[in-house]
Amino acid sequence: PRPVKAPTGSQLHCKGWYQEAALRMLCNNLDPDNGENPDELIVYGGLGKAARNWDCFDAIIKTLLDLENNETLLVQSGKPVGVLTTHTAAPRVLIANANIVPHWANWGTFHELDKKGLIMYGQMTAGSWIYIGTQGILQGTYETFAALGQKHFKSDLTGKIVVTAGLGGMGGAQPLSVTMANGVAICIEIDPSRIARRLEKRYLDVEADDLDAAIAMARKAAADRKPLSIGLCANVGDILPAMIQKGFIPDVITDQTSAHDELNGYFPAGLSFKDALTLRKSDPDTYKDMALNAMADHVRAILEMKDKGAIAFDYGNNLRAQAMKKGVDNAMDYPGFVPAYIRDLFCKGEGPFRWAALSGDPKDIKVTDDALMQLFPKKTKMINWLKMAQEKIEHMGLPSRICWLGYGEREKAGKLFNDLVRTGKVKAPIVIGRDHLDCGSVASPFRETEAMKDGSDAVADWALLNCMTNVASGATWVSFHDGGGVGIGYALHAGQVTVADGTDEAEIRVTTVLRNDPGTGIIRHADAGYQTAIDVANEKGVKLPMINMHGERP
Amino acid sequence: PRPVKAPTGSQLHCKGWYQEAALRMLCNNLDPDNGENPDELIVYGGLGKAARNWDCFDAIIKTLLDLENNETLLVQSGKPVGVLTTHTAAPRVLIANANIVPHWANWGTFHELDKKGLIMYGQMTAGSWIYIGTQGILQGTYETFAALGQKHFKSDLTGKIVVTAGLGGMGGAQPLSVTMANGVAICIEIDPSRIARRLEKRYLDVEADDLDAAIAMARKAAADRKPLSIGLCANVGDILPAMIQKGFIPDVITDQTSAHDELNGYFPAGLSFKDALTLRKSDPDTYKDMALNAMADHVRAILEMKDKGAIAFDYGNNLRAQAMKKGVDNAMDYPGFVPAYIRDLFCKGEGPFRWAALSGDPKDIKVTDDALMQLFPKKTKMINWLKMAQEKIEHMGLPSRICWLGYGEREKAGKLFNDLVRTGKVKAPIVIGRDHLDCGSVASPFRETEAMKDGSDAVADWALLNCMTNVASGATWVSFHDGGGVGIGYALHAGQVTVADGTDEAEIRVTTVLRNDPGTGIIRHADAGYQTAIDVANEKGVKLPMINMHGERP
Ligand SMILES: NC(=O)c1ccc[n+]([C@@H]2O[C@H](COP(=O)([O-])OP(=O)(O)OC[C@H]3O[C@@H](n4cnc5c(N)ncnc54)[C@H](O)[C@@H]3O)[C@@H](O)[C@H]2O)c1
Ligand SMILES: NC(=O)c1ccc[n+]([C@@H]2O[C@H](COP(=O)([O-])OP(=O)(O)OC[C@H]3O[C@@H](n4cnc5c(N)ncnc54)[C@H](O)[C@@H]3O)[C@@H](O)[C@H]2O)c1
Repeated sequence: PRPVKAPTGSQLHCKGWYQEAALRMLCNNLDPDNGENPDELIVYGGLGKAARNWDCFDAIIKTLLDLENNETLLVQSGKPVGVLTTHTAAPRVLIANANIVPHWANWGTFHELDKKGLIMYGQMTAGSWIYIGTQGILQGTYETFAALGQKHFKSDLTGKIVVTAGLGGMGGAQPLSVTMANGVAICIEIDPSRIARRLEKRYLDVEADDLDAAIAMARKAAADRKPLSIGLCANVGDILPAMIQKGFIPDVITDQTSAHDELNGYFPAGLSFKDALTLRKSDPDTYKDMALNAMADHVRAILEMKDKGAIAFDYGNNLRAQAMKKGVDNAMDYPGFVPAYIRDLFCKGEGPFRWAALSGDPKDIKVTDDALMQLFPKKTKMINWLKMAQEKIEHMGLPSRICWLGYGEREKAGKLFNDLVRTGKVKAPIVIGRDHLDCGSVASPFRETEAMKDGSDAVADWALLNCMTNVASGATWVSFHDGGGVGIGYALHAGQVTVADGTDEAEIRVTTVLRNDPGTGIIRHADAGYQTAIDVANEKGVKLPMINMHGERP
Repeated sequence: PRPVKAPTGSQLHCKGWYQEAALRMLCNNLDPDNGENPDELIVYGGLGKAARNWDCFDAIIKTLLDLENNETLLVQSGKPVGVLTTHTAAPRVLIANANIVPHWANWGTFHELDKKGLIMYGQMTAGSWIYIGTQGILQGTYETFAALGQKHFKSDLTGKIVVTAGLGGMGGAQPLSVTMANGVAICIEIDPSRIARRLEKRYLDVEADDLDAAIAMARKAAADRKPLSIGLCANVGDILPAMIQKGFIPDVITDQTSAHDELNGYFPAGLSFKDALTLRKSDPDTYKDMALNAMADHVRAILEMKDKGAIAFDYGNNLRAQAMKKGVDNAMDYPGFVPAYIRDLFCKGEGPFRWAALSGDPKDIKVTDDALMQLFPKKTKMINWLKMAQEKIEHMGLPSRICWLGYGEREKAGKLFNDLVRTGKVKAPIVIGRDHLDCGSVASPFRETEAMKDGSDAVADWALLNCMTNVASGATWVSFHDGGGVGIGYALHAGQVTVADGTDEAEIRVTTVLRNDPGTGIIRHADAGYQTAIDVANEKGVKLPMINMHGERP
């Protein structure tokens, strides 16, 4: 155990704030208050790590402490491999995690390379040093459940029961998101420590002793139209069939176990938690096979609930594709959350804008929250969210905030934050980044780019153009990963983090990056034929050579 | 037919030389004197294209003509999709070609996406606008045959017979390379127009009427210790077994058909050239199956020749892996050319440095050749090559030159060329780029990264770090592709092109890019444990955090 804490305050340890920001955010990803299993350098999402091993972590820190303002550190799968002289306007760190030549890009090869010490799984924000705890996903999850309520019930989730599983780094956001939307949630989780943690952080209201108790509590709360989240320590694969047998069909069924990783992310039904952990090490092949079969049954149960009236959607963990491997040919009969609820936001360049206060002082986040509400007085949904967040969210590690902002808005917010630093309204620079799950940054046919209008789900050029754009625009660090969310081989995605340190240079960098980064999202969706994206491009002057630049469309 | 010629001279058509260079080099790739099949926008290597279609070509040209000096054009698989405001030090064009999410990255999905008009195969220098005709590969091929002679015969190829196939964009360099090394070559090619073209360009000496004539001519030339290259119009799959039957075993056997593409690159034995072309369109599935089976027999024949004493090596066209699909389990019994002959050069940061004179005047290349010989008076191999090139190579399209230079040397050459432009010794700016087949830019387990010391053949993080490094260092255009040489899914690789226009800014950009680009090659090979690369890093001050920066190795 090596507890890591990010340095805080307005004192520099590095030769500039850009390096300092990278150092603090790397440490913050491994802060036991923030990351899920920092002892093994795991931040979230199964195996998602911040550095390859502790030697690499130490070497990254040392190198950042020495890094000049015209140098760039190269990080290959969590290992610092080189330092190049570039120039002051270049990124300070360039990161590539878990990328494998496509023909070999699968978990089998990944684990072989991992055993040889040659690679690391970075998930999305783990290996790109911008994880901000469950708040990061809370906002996305809240928006999703809110959009679901609006679409299917023309209201919020009052009186409705959601069943889901997984209370990990991301999944842990589900209970609070549902209750924020006034609904009732039963959350099945096999690891008792995860339940304890969500109770302690107030993301989860209560724990039920068994399934009957959970159902009774849920039915009562729904009848009373009261929000309530209920944890149930069990294997979801045992529970769903039991629910069906008891005639209990929820209004909404989804899942956030780490199904994308059949070895380290999912527990096969029928085994105890402890036996499963032992089998993982002693006989991984058998384990993987059991897990995939269990996922197949899991999806069959979801499909049955759907047939019986539940709204089913996939929450981006690749469960459906895994089940297809074991013969569930109709697994895709229920949609992913992106085409169902998120795509329309992407067409406007909206995505998970987030920031952290390097000072470590929660008051700095309060200042940014308030300034943002003043800057966008008409964005009532955003204002509601920020108020709710101020009230309900405990900071984990460095104080931080997230809210989805669209094309044009992100740039304005970035300038605003830089001004707050410049004028001393906050005590130290602000770091601005995002999840890789964004409008322009990701190619992931089972999640973000599922069912694209033009059939371009699997085209990954877009993610690469986003990556190169962020480097060219002067982001402070840029990353490119394989496998976030849905597992190795199933997604390619880019991340960027940019520091507002109050200087004129930072203003240029922050506004350039925060314009162009979502700009590639507008371009990607316009090219795919989404009219909303074309309209936004025309309105806001995003130049599209084959659409709006040279007169008529050729 | 739409013959394209690059504009020449010192007059600008665009708003700056960086845009102008991109425009001219794109046109140059499609110049009928340079590209292989410009009517279909095909530059070389089977399907390797410069733009997705003629509408896209026109739109790229229009957009480059308008592009401001602080703008960046995004090109997605040969289509111009967006223009972003970046800054003057950023690349002018960012290109991503044929990248597909790994799980779907195969020819099947590629062709489906291609039919929908969503993707383009860029090979390496086709889609990244720095193809310079067969000279590009001539140097590499010459170096390879020279190294082979040195390694196996302790001399050049005097008195030795090489048998190979394919006289396409790359393969066409084989006959001249072998004769430059004083050897004898029999080159089997099924397409008569390819043979005619190589004869006309003086890359090929003579054509034989049939196999017996070819063997007789080869034997006589070898006995006389005279260099000679002989074309034979036939299918290699029919010829190799016939050679074996006749008891003719060459000294060296290799192949450069476009075997990586079983539909558009390889002709199955037993079919006439015309019948094969018809079958490709009428029944592609049958065609592909026949081609793969023919490749299996082809490899079996190579293995038999090897058993009988020939030196066999794979020339980077994925023939061995294709044969394995049809059961030739021991296809990998003969090595690829990289581990056999090239890896050691990569460890020194050496790679295919190339440049073109935007003036269009061959005298400009003469000036650069002479200046380079003065700059490096001790590089006798390079000097020999440049003299031979001046004598034997006809320019195809814009006058250009290639020679392999190492870490440190490329940077010096770039500064030299920028000085030549500044002082008016050449008439217009010089474009400096390279093939993607370079020390740091590519992950390709069947070619450039075959049999890496640490087993990291398939790790693709390195190619991405190279790509991001080139963007961060200020290259004029940067590209990232899937599938060059070995086919979709088998390789990921980055390209860069940087313009020396004689300004101070260009000097900074050129030297930064030409230092860091091969720098990532030193880093990649040092990390893999190659002592030569570690020595070069230590000698030349390439910073390696875990190796030479913080005292002892942790
Ligand atoms: N919704 C989104 O936007 C979104 C975004 C990113 C990722 N995801 C995906 O959601 C999944 C969960 O992410 P995470 O960070 O929470 O992962 P995690 O590994 O931290 O947590 C997964 C949890 O599921 C539990 N679990 C596994 N199998 C179980 C079973 N059979 N029954 C009950 N509990 C079980 C584990 O004990 C663990 O607590 C991942 O696949 C992730 O990629 C979703
Ligand atoms: N050595 C290297 O450094 C290197 C570099 C890059 C690529 N390559 C690979 O070499 C291959 C050739 O490249 P290219 O640009 O010359 O391709 P190309 O498509 O231009 O030419 C291939 C030639 O092979 C001929 N051919 C195909 N099947 C044949 C058969 N069965 N018998 C006789 N002739 C046949 C075709 O008619 C064609 O002329 C490609 O796979 C390429 O990727 C090698």
